[in-house]
Amino acid sequence: MKIGIVGLGVIGGSYALNLKPYGHEIVGYDTNPDTIKYAREQNIIDHGDHEQPDILGTCDVVFVCLYPQDTVQFIKRHASLFKSNSIVCDVSGVKEDVMLSLDNLYVEYFELVFAHPIAGREVRGIKGAKKGLFNNMNFIITPHKKNTPGALKTIEDLALEMGFGHISFMSDAEHDQAIGYTSQLTHAIAMALMNASDYNDQTKFTIGDSYRDLTRIARINEDLWSELFIKNAYKLTHIIDHFIDSLNQVKTAIKEKDEDTLKSLMIESTKRRNALDE
Amino acid sequence: MKIGIVGLGVIGGSYALNLKPYGHEIVGYDTNPDTIKYAREQNIIDHGDHEQPDILGTCDVVFVCLYPQDTVQFIKRHASLFKSNSIVCDVSGVKEDVMLSLDNLYVEYFELVFAHPIAGREVRGIKGAKKGLFNNMNFIITPHKKNTPGALKTIEDLALEMGFGHISFMSDAEHDQAIGYTSQLTHAIAMALMNASDYNDQTKFTIGDSYRDLTRIARINEDLWSELFIKNAYKLTHIIDHFIDSLNQVKTAIKEKDEDTLKSLMIESTKRRNALDE
Repeated sequence: MKIGIVGLGVIGGSYALNLKPYGHEIVGYDTNPDTIKYAREQNIIDHGDHEQPDILGTCDVVFVCLYPQDTVQFIKRHASLFKSNSIVCDVSGVKEDVMLSLDNLYVEYFELVFAHPIAGREVRGIKGAKKGLFNNMNFIITPHKKNTPGALKTIEDLALEMGFGHISFMSDAEHDQAIGYTSQLTHAIAMALMNASDYNDQTKFTIGDSYRDLTRIARINEDLWSELFIKNAYKLTHIIDHFIDSLNQVKTAIKEKDEDTLKSLMIESTKRRNALDE
Repeated sequence: MKIGIVGLGVIGGSYALNLKPYGHEIVGYDTNPDTIKYAREQNIIDHGDHEQPDILGTCDVVFVCLYPQDTVQFIKRHASLFKSNSIVCDVSGVKEDVMLSLDNLYVEYFELVFAHPIAGREVRGIKGAKKGLFNNMNFIITPHKKNTPGALKTIEDLALEMGFGHISFMSDAEHDQAIGYTSQLTHAIAMALMNASDYNDQTKFTIGDSYRDLTRIARINEDLWSELFIKNAYKLTHIIDHFIDSLNQVKTAIKEKDEDTLKSLMIESTKRRNALDE
């Protein structure tokens, strides 16, 4: 297949790196000329351009690996450019907002498929692209009513080639609810922990692995994540409330020195965490 | 030196493993005969017993590597057993409670030193002991007014031999405040995240590394941690409140779609997290 990739950052670059070994022809489009130069020199892509998106016009599948709002704008602006019967797929971490914004394009002669690779790194740009980044990771496809089984299958197969370990199908609302909890809430927690008033200059001498692990993602790309948080604001604020309820249960048990409740909460969290690895 | 270790779990066993290469004679005491048998077979200790703590009576330094309450009880019960001018040192993750409970022993003919190795693993028992477990980790000594510079120096030197990267000296209250934030709060957050009402059977298919990292310590030893939480209840409940305040700042910015505030919170958390690694 001839596969186009728009935006050669960590995700787009890793899509290219992990699809290339399967014999696909990889076409890259990124507005940064250095990125295209590097991607060609490193043999991450076969062809590329930083000015002419027309290069995507002969691709069978185009992955638009941009931030949500940029994805919507790129697809709308270049809708006439995509090949007849081609598939255009996003990578956005929010789905209701993006799918609603592109609603009027569902019936175009190309087919839109919406998908979310649940992977990332705390670095930006093509140099953060990595072979094996998707190994055993989760991939979610959020079908819309106009999708054909063939297009969904194509994206599923490409995700498996890239190394993803589990492909789920769910509605856009289910996706935003689930990801609000597993991904957005965790980033909000990491930020809040790092920014809490108890942090001070001596903190670094009193931490162990736990604090390091819980704050790793406090090193956060503010452009991407402020967009993701705001686009999922309604669900995410409720999810934060549910987490605070859960934390207040722990706090109340501590305050009342209620050892039995504390232990049962710990046994439950241990059981659930073990189940994640099964 | 002849070094006694009481309780050959992850911490005690790792103390033994990481001190032995320096030529010390290591004496182990653990009430589990299988543990002593394994520790001798694996050459983790030189001598050991599961019934007679008297074996500790000739040691220059004894590390009591038990849970806080057990540490207090063991030291009180066996106070007459320790060698004259020897040092007895704990590993407890709470200090005010433990030091207050042993207050009347500060003037014994042996010297109590209180210290906290900030390291651990999500496994229990001697088989979780590990060479290098303490490499570059933090170690805190909480001196009391009767401590001699010589005894504090001995424990500091042994900590450096074990591989610890930074030794801090602070009061018991400062320790409990700092550790309440960096260690106890992080465990409370991990539990609460895992136990939140948004968790369900499908969660495992919608997670990435962030969720896995933030819940790793939700797999928690309920006997140890319920004790640590309750013994630091006053400080910890306030620390939890401060964290919730910080998270509510994030939530309010999301709710109000206040991109500027969200970004500035993210930039601050990124800056602070980067400083941890400097």
